[in-house]
Amino acid sequence: MTLDRMFHALADGTRRAMIERLVRGPATVSDLARPFDMTLPAVVQHLAVLEAAGLVTSRKIGRVRTVQLAPEALTAAGTWISEQRLPAERQLDRLEDFLTAPKEHVR
Amino acid sequence: MTLDRMFHALADGTRRAMIERLVRGPATVSDLARPFDMTLPAVVQHLAVLEAAGLVTSRKIGRVRTVQLAPEALTAAGTWISEQRLPAERQLDRLEDFLTAPKEHVR
Repeated sequence: MTLDRMFHALADGTRRAMIERLVRGPATVSDLARPFDMTLPAVVQHLAVLEAAGLVTSRKIGRVRTVQLAPEALTAAGTWISEQRLPAERQLDRLEDFLTAPKEHVR
Repeated sequence: MTLDRMFHALADGTRRAMIERLVRGPATVSDLARPFDMTLPAVVQHLAVLEAAGLVTSRKIGRVRTVQLAPEALTAAGTWISEQRLPAERQLDRLEDFLTAPKEHVR
C-alpha cells in the first residue's frame, strides 16, 4: 500500500535528511552520501526505500546516478494527515466556541 | 525520535483506520476493535504504538479503557511534510513561470 510504504520511508532520520537535501535540487548518490557516516551500500539501500515509496526518482548516466525528488512526492502523505487534522481542529474550535461563548447565550 | 515513532505508527493501515475513527471522537478499545478482524491483544498492541508516538491518549475507568486523539496529534508530522513540500512546489512554480513566460522577454 502506497501510504504504508511512504510513512515507513519517512520513519527514519537519514531518509528524511536525504529528502531535506533533495528539496534544494537533484544530487548524485555520492553527494547524498557525504553528510552521513555510512557505507555507500547503506546509502543506496535507503535510496531504494525512498524510490519504492515513490518519493524520489533516479537515473544513471555513465557511472553517475542522479537522484531527484519526485514531483508529487509527499502529496499523498500530506493529504492524509490534513484530512485527519482538519476535523480534529474543527472539534477543538467548537470546544473553544463553547468555552468562550457569552454565558447569557446559554439557556 | 518523535518523528521516527510518529511516521512508523502511521505506516500501517489498521493504525491509520483507528485514527480516522478517533477523529470523530473518543472510543473504547472494544469500539475500536469492532471493525477489525483481529484479536483484542493485537488491537491493544496497535494502540500502544499510537500512544508511544503521542498520537492518542487513553484512560481506564473501571474496566473500560477509552482512547482519544491527542490534541496536537499529527502536528509534527504534518509540519515536517509541509516544510518539504513548500520548497518543492516553489521549484515547480519557478519552472512553470519559465515555461509560460512570453518568449520576447527571453533575451
